[in-house]
Amino acid sequence: MGHTIGRSKKTGLPPGSLVYTGDKKTESMKISIIDYDENGFEEKQVQTIEECLPYKNNGRVTWIDIDGLDNIDNVKKLGDCFGLHTLVLEDILTTDQRPKMEDFGDYIYMVLRMLYYNKKTFRITSEQISIILKKDIVISFQEREGDLFDPVRERLRSAKGRIRKMGADFLAYSLLDAIVDNHFVILEDVGESLEDVEEELVMNPSVKTSIKIHTFKRDMIVLRKSIWPMRELINGIFRLESNLISSNIEIYFRDIYDHTIQIIETVESFRDMLSEMLDIYLSSISNRMNEIMKVLTIIATIFIPLTFIVGVYGMNFKYMPELEWRWSYPVLWLIMLSIGGFMFYNFKKNKWL
Amino acid sequence: MGHTIGRSKKTGLPPGSLVYTGDKKTESMKISIIDYDENGFEEKQVQTIEECLPYKNNGRVTWIDIDGLDNIDNVKKLGDCFGLHTLVLEDILTTDQRPKMEDFGDYIYMVLRMLYYNKKTFRITSEQISIILKKDIVISFQEREGDLFDPVRERLRSAKGRIRKMGADFLAYSLLDAIVDNHFVILEDVGESLEDVEEELVMNPSVKTSIKIHTFKRDMIVLRKSIWPMRELINGIFRLESNLISSNIEIYFRDIYDHTIQIIETVESFRDMLSEMLDIYLSSISNRMNEIMKVLTIIATIFIPLTFIVGVYGMNFKYMPELEWRWSYPVLWLIMLSIGGFMFYNFKKNKWL
Amino acid sequence: MGHTIGRSKKTGLPPGSLVYTGDKKTESMKISIIDYDENGFEEKQVQTIEECLPYKNNGRVTWIDIDGLDNIDNVKKLGDCFGLHTLVLEDILTTDQRPKMEDFGDYIYMVLRMLYYNKKTFRITSEQISIILKKDIVISFQEREGDLFDPVRERLRSAKGRIRKMGADFLAYSLLDAIVDNHFVILEDVGESLEDVEEELVMNPSVKTSIKIHTFKRDMIVLRKSIWPMRELINGIFRLESNLISSNIEIYFRDIYDHTIQIIETVESFRDMLSEMLDIYLSSISNRMNEIMKVLTIIATIFIPLTFIVGVYGMNFKYMPELEWRWSYPVLWLIMLSIGGFMFYNFKKNKWL
Amino acid sequence: MGHTIGRSKKTGLPPGSLVYTGDKKTESMKISIIDYDENGFEEKQVQTIEECLPYKNNGRVTWIDIDGLDNIDNVKKLGDCFGLHTLVLEDILTTDQRPKMEDFGDYIYMVLRMLYYNKKTFRITSEQISIILKKDIVISFQEREGDLFDPVRERLRSAKGRIRKMGADFLAYSLLDAIVDNHFVILEDVGESLEDVEEELVMNPSVKTSIKIHTFKRDMIVLRKSIWPMRELINGIFRLESNLISSNIEIYFRDIYDHTIQIIETVESFRDMLSEMLDIYLSSISNRMNEIMKVLTIIATIFIPLTFIVGVYGMNFKYMPELEWRWSYPVLWLIMLSIGGFMFYNFKKNKWL
Amino acid sequence: MGHTIGRSKKTGLPPGSLVYTGDKKTESMKISIIDYDENGFEEKQVQTIEECLPYKNNGRVTWIDIDGLDNIDNVKKLGDCFGLHTLVLEDILTTDQRPKMEDFGDYIYMVLRMLYYNKKTFRITSEQISIILKKDIVISFQEREGDLFDPVRERLRSAKGRIRKMGADFLAYSLLDAIVDNHFVILEDVGESLEDVEEELVMNPSVKTSIKIHTFKRDMIVLRKSIWPMRELINGIFRLESNLISSNIEIYFRDIYDHTIQIIETVESFRDMLSEMLDIYLSSISNRMNEIMKVLTIIATIFIPLTFIVGVYGMNFKYMPELEWRWSYPVLWLIMLSIGGFMFYNFKKNKWL
Repeated sequence: MGHTIGRSKKTGLPPGSLVYTGDKKTESMKISIIDYDENGFEEKQVQTIEECLPYKNNGRVTWIDIDGLDNIDNVKKLGDCFGLHTLVLEDILTTDQRPKMEDFGDYIYMVLRMLYYNKKTFRITSEQISIILKKDIVISFQEREGDLFDPVRERLRSAKGRIRKMGADFLAYSLLDAIVDNHFVILEDVGESLEDVEEELVMNPSVKTSIKIHTFKRDMIVLRKSIWPMRELINGIFRLESNLISSNIEIYFRDIYDHTIQIIETVESFRDMLSEMLDIYLSSISNRMNEIMKVLTIIATIFIPLTFIVGVYGMNFKYMPELEWRWSYPVLWLIMLSIGGFMFYNFKKNKWL
Repeated sequence: MGHTIGRSKKTGLPPGSLVYTGDKKTESMKISIIDYDENGFEEKQVQTIEECLPYKNNGRVTWIDIDGLDNIDNVKKLGDCFGLHTLVLEDILTTDQRPKMEDFGDYIYMVLRMLYYNKKTFRITSEQISIILKKDIVISFQEREGDLFDPVRERLRSAKGRIRKMGADFLAYSLLDAIVDNHFVILEDVGESLEDVEEELVMNPSVKTSIKIHTFKRDMIVLRKSIWPMRELINGIFRLESNLISSNIEIYFRDIYDHTIQIIETVESFRDMLSEMLDIYLSSISNRMNEIMKVLTIIATIFIPLTFIVGVYGMNFKYMPELEWRWSYPVLWLIMLSIGGFMFYNFKKNKWL
Repeated sequence: MGHTIGRSKKTGLPPGSLVYTGDKKTESMKISIIDYDENGFEEKQVQTIEECLPYKNNGRVTWIDIDGLDNIDNVKKLGDCFGLHTLVLEDILTTDQRPKMEDFGDYIYMVLRMLYYNKKTFRITSEQISIILKKDIVISFQEREGDLFDPVRERLRSAKGRIRKMGADFLAYSLLDAIVDNHFVILEDVGESLEDVEEELVMNPSVKTSIKIHTFKRDMIVLRKSIWPMRELINGIFRLESNLISSNIEIYFRDIYDHTIQIIETVESFRDMLSEMLDIYLSSISNRMNEIMKVLTIIATIFIPLTFIVGVYGMNFKYMPELEWRWSYPVLWLIMLSIGGFMFYNFKKNKWL
Repeated sequence: MGHTIGRSKKTGLPPGSLVYTGDKKTESMKISIIDYDENGFEEKQVQTIEECLPYKNNGRVTWIDIDGLDNIDNVKKLGDCFGLHTLVLEDILTTDQRPKMEDFGDYIYMVLRMLYYNKKTFRITSEQISIILKKDIVISFQEREGDLFDPVRERLRSAKGRIRKMGADFLAYSLLDAIVDNHFVILEDVGESLEDVEEELVMNPSVKTSIKIHTFKRDMIVLRKSIWPMRELINGIFRLESNLISSNIEIYFRDIYDHTIQIIETVESFRDMLSEMLDIYLSSISNRMNEIMKVLTIIATIFIPLTFIVGVYGMNFKYMPELEWRWSYPVLWLIMLSIGGFMFYNFKKNKWL
Repeated sequence: MGHTIGRSKKTGLPPGSLVYTGDKKTESMKISIIDYDENGFEEKQVQTIEECLPYKNNGRVTWIDIDGLDNIDNVKKLGDCFGLHTLVLEDILTTDQRPKMEDFGDYIYMVLRMLYYNKKTFRITSEQISIILKKDIVISFQEREGDLFDPVRERLRSAKGRIRKMGADFLAYSLLDAIVDNHFVILEDVGESLEDVEEELVMNPSVKTSIKIHTFKRDMIVLRKSIWPMRELINGIFRLESNLISSNIEIYFRDIYDHTIQIIETVESFRDMLSEMLDIYLSSISNRMNEIMKVLTIIATIFIPLTFIVGVYGMNFKYMPELEWRWSYPVLWLIMLSIGGFMFYNFKKNKWL
């Protein structure tokens, strides 16, 4: 359960204490550097933070991508190198942050959540991604290696689109865009699963169906916790008067903003649909219950009185005149058939059958 | 299901990539031009974007209506011709936009949703309509040919009302008005269907009735997703300080604004009514269940003890004095009748019958 | 159902087209004029709009009251006479407007809803009333003749209160006040009906009770749709900087404003109470169901095993030693009585009886 | 029911008409005057309004407390004496006002609600209290004699605290404080009753428990209607720039304001708790239902098949070989016991027992 | 129940009356003083308030921590010593305050709630903590001795982090931080308990499970009542323009603010989850009910008709031809088996089995 916050490890420590609260231990921290401008492109993997230093202030845009956060010393060293506040480093390592953005003057710190959807368990899990935007430098932190940023890397390599012509702000935008677009992919997957469940609901509703619906409802809670603050974050970037973000890419941020709104509305309408589906499930269950009760009632109502009647003539009294009569038996059959028929007719009339 | 967003086709592509995300392939794009001023009127169908160019800056109002969006090259060409931003073209082709308006200085981009109501399945579906308002030019994009704008065309042809005397802003207003008015038609159709369902609910509620109610509830979700942002859109036009919209038609926009509010309130009261109807359905179901249970209980409660009694005298013990008595049988009948009568009286008293 | 909007008649028509969308055809339009100042008072019925003209600008306050809206020509003529915008005339005739107020500089247009409560069906219906406030002139439009404004007329005739000493703004206020006060009357009637239903709920809840509750819930929807925008309307008059409304009657509008708030709160608390009543109904139903089930269960639980036992000794096996024993029968009775008694005791202990 | 507004008595009357809408007729209006400054204190009961006049402008603080509002002439006279607007007098007599405050320049009019809690019926009822704050004069109106203000009177008599040293504004504050504190007393009483109900809910839930819960829910509606506008009222006093209220007692009003917030939050948490309790009640009911059904099902499921079996051997066919066999009867008992045992085992396994 | 407010003790008393409303009587008030600056540190326990005086204005930061509030005289003396308003002292002693902050110019008064979670009863209880921030002095009041502030004390002793280098504002922040962090610990504990309950819900839902869920729902109400106003409080500190709080620690308060938001969101998502869990519980219960009903119905539906049939041939009529026939008995068995088989098949087909 993603709600175990893991913060108790930190209770009582002074602010700015660096403790990694996640539970995913990668084998080692992986540092990859991409350095580019309109004309050139360089990509390499380094082992130590020190190897990143030459890329600082080299006049080209540098993207340092860090996968794995369990090496606290490295994070600390990086913070010293690039002048990051201890509280920022603390936030990077405390991997249950809600998405937010903070402006520290010479750099902007953004923390976001990347989502994974497991198509088998229908569960959405999330992971923290931190992005630092400094002059000409973007540093990104992931809990473990992921392929979310691969398309951006690919575009940088192939110089497709305008990304190589733009600055670090456009790179940061591209990363944000990749994270937001990832939500669409998940929503689409969820949408498909929902369609399946909806069909199941109509064809053959069972307890499993309702458990699936509840799982999806919970997924929507996870999605909302990720996307609502994302909207605030991007809105915050708008209102920011920072020279780290040039005015000509504002239209791109407006575009992402529209996307977050659309994601929010889709999540909300998924929620509405799930409530509807749950209502339908419940009423189909209660309907089935009714069906069952009706059958029981009809059978019981018809046969209980008849059973009483035949019981009467199963009594062993010495003086029961009917027992001796010639036509008692067939007449009784007639009586019983008419009682049964009358009841059946009544059920029909009352639309119980 | 309209929630499959189809955006996954675009994941990883650079911003501004033109991909048509809809699933309606028309045979070919249809371009119709209407060019008019107070004195003259010209209407024609063209094959290529190039044929539109002469109408640019000819001093008359020009309306270019494009049906079908699968020809991406044409959209691109048109964008180049009329100086539209790639992100706008991308939005035109990504046919799951929520209604919005954006001011690009020399033109205004509006995206709206047109609704269709299927009276048989009770389902509301929607389609995207984009409108570009430039100086003296209105360009409209539809996913497929529709007759929504026909009344506007007719009024232009016949010079009815003041439309031919006004500028491109009034034309854009007329198109918006047609789209908003379309909501009233749908609400009226839904309202009629609702009355039918309401009658069904009173006369003969069945599972089908509840499914219809759920369908309508979902329709209301679709309607809300279309109309709420429409209100924002028109509100945005008010607050716009653009010389593309002259001040003397502001009152007309205020009129549409009132209409959107009215639509919203009708949708909300439909929602309230549907909740009410569902409650009524559920309580009628539970009431019927009660009826059924009562019948079962009454029959069982009366006959189960009686059956026990006759069972007693069906036993084959050698020494059962009652069996030999002369009046056992009629006395037993009396006893059983009084037990049955007493129970019946009790049920009456407790209002179970 | 008041939700059939009747606007489809107007789809595709140019804005400002005059079509009466109501369904109440009065025999003919009735025009009554009341003309007064502090010293004099004149009241008369006229046949044509032309007869109203002399009262324009005669230095006294004139109230033109029009009942019945099916004569579109007359409305048009009136609009021309008094310089009303076509969109206003359109709104007067489109009788499903939500309450609103619009300031056109030299006149103020207000549209409100008058409510009727049918004490037999418990249904609230509504009708549109339009009021035009011009300098020294008030024009009111009703769909059909009503007695709502009679007290105002009476006060004018008898010069009671300060109404004859005040201007057209006070007259308009008096009409608004009459409409708002009408809500109190309806709420009181509804309140009384609610008390009856509440008593019924406690004494003898039936399906009818729940249907009444649902009817009231729907009435509250109608009331809210009328009163919320009314509050906005009166709030709008406050914020208005119009010389049509003198500052010394502002306190009267504040008074109406308080009344609308009080009506809103009463409606909201009625809604809360209705929800409570529905909950009570449902729990009383489910309670009765429980009672029924308990009876069934007790009877069945006691007698089914006993019936099995007597069935055993009704078997015709040749070799059943018990059948021959001398005291079998009375012993069996003892056994059966103790089983029954034990079960009864258990039910008592578990508080089922 | 407190919702019968009683305003219909006033429909059609001109604004400012004085009609007492309450239903509590006291024997006669009681007027008590307390006149004090730091050094002196005078308290007396008077019969006529005229006797109050000497206290006007005598340089000391005067508190006129009026109990009983059915003597309209006296209220009118008082209004004339102290220069109160007719609308204020109307509000004083219309005893279903929602709490509000109005500033008339030379005096402030406040209307509040005093609550009574009946510990037997668990019902909260309310009564209107009006307070007029003029320079050096406070006039309070109650529907009937109450002891709410006794502690204030006592403090004035004994010169306890700083009340005798302060002006009329502090007196008004003290009255407000008494009214607000009264809410705490009621909440505490309700809280205690709630604890009882909670215990009852755990020990022995019955229909009565649910009715109590519903009564409390309705009480909360009454409380909210009283306390929310009270908050606005006190907030209004803050924002007031009136020289009737000196700045050094602002901190006392902030204190009351905090109290209203705390009352609101307690009411809200009571509401949450009541919803919880209702849920618990419903689930305990449904649980009991389940228990009952289980017993029925177990008994029926075990004995119905057995009864069928013994029925088989109760048949009178001439040719039934089993009937003649030597060990039929004991073997059948074995079979029946194993069937019963098997079913019992199954129920155990499925946790039904 | 924490809702018994205990304020009735104070009704009618003048404002500023000092009465301790809590119910926890500690043996005696415990006063501990920590006095420090960057170079020195002194810690001691004192018996009387007078012993605190030397620490006033000694140029170092002084933290006076008071555990136990039943000694009202001491509180009063302290208030006199440090110039605290009587209303503040009243608030300190009235231990059901909602968290709030008040700026008195030369000191800031903050009241907060500390939470305790009982892992056995799953109940959250709370206690009031008051903090006074004066120039160079922090005074904290707790109802009883707690170990919440121990880590802060430890850091002061060991000069760990920067706490010894900072002023009284940082000390106040550290205390606030400890209180907020305490919420994380509780949320984590609750989260773990929730996981257990969730497992129980899937494996073996019982009435106990639902009671636990309801207990947690109520805990969330307590948590919300504590944390929402805490957010306001910290927000209030931001907006404060007080020279008691230096600008360089603003970033630390922003950090706490983020924490409160995160706590709020976790509480909200716990609430959502609990609602989900309750829904799952209810549907599992109703599902089990269905299962039970199905078994009953199947058994009854199959055997009731068969029992009737065997009853028929248990009748003792003299003239029943079937009784004499040679193959009646085996044929009847065949008939009964096919009836049973047919019904069984039907149940299978309708998915009841």
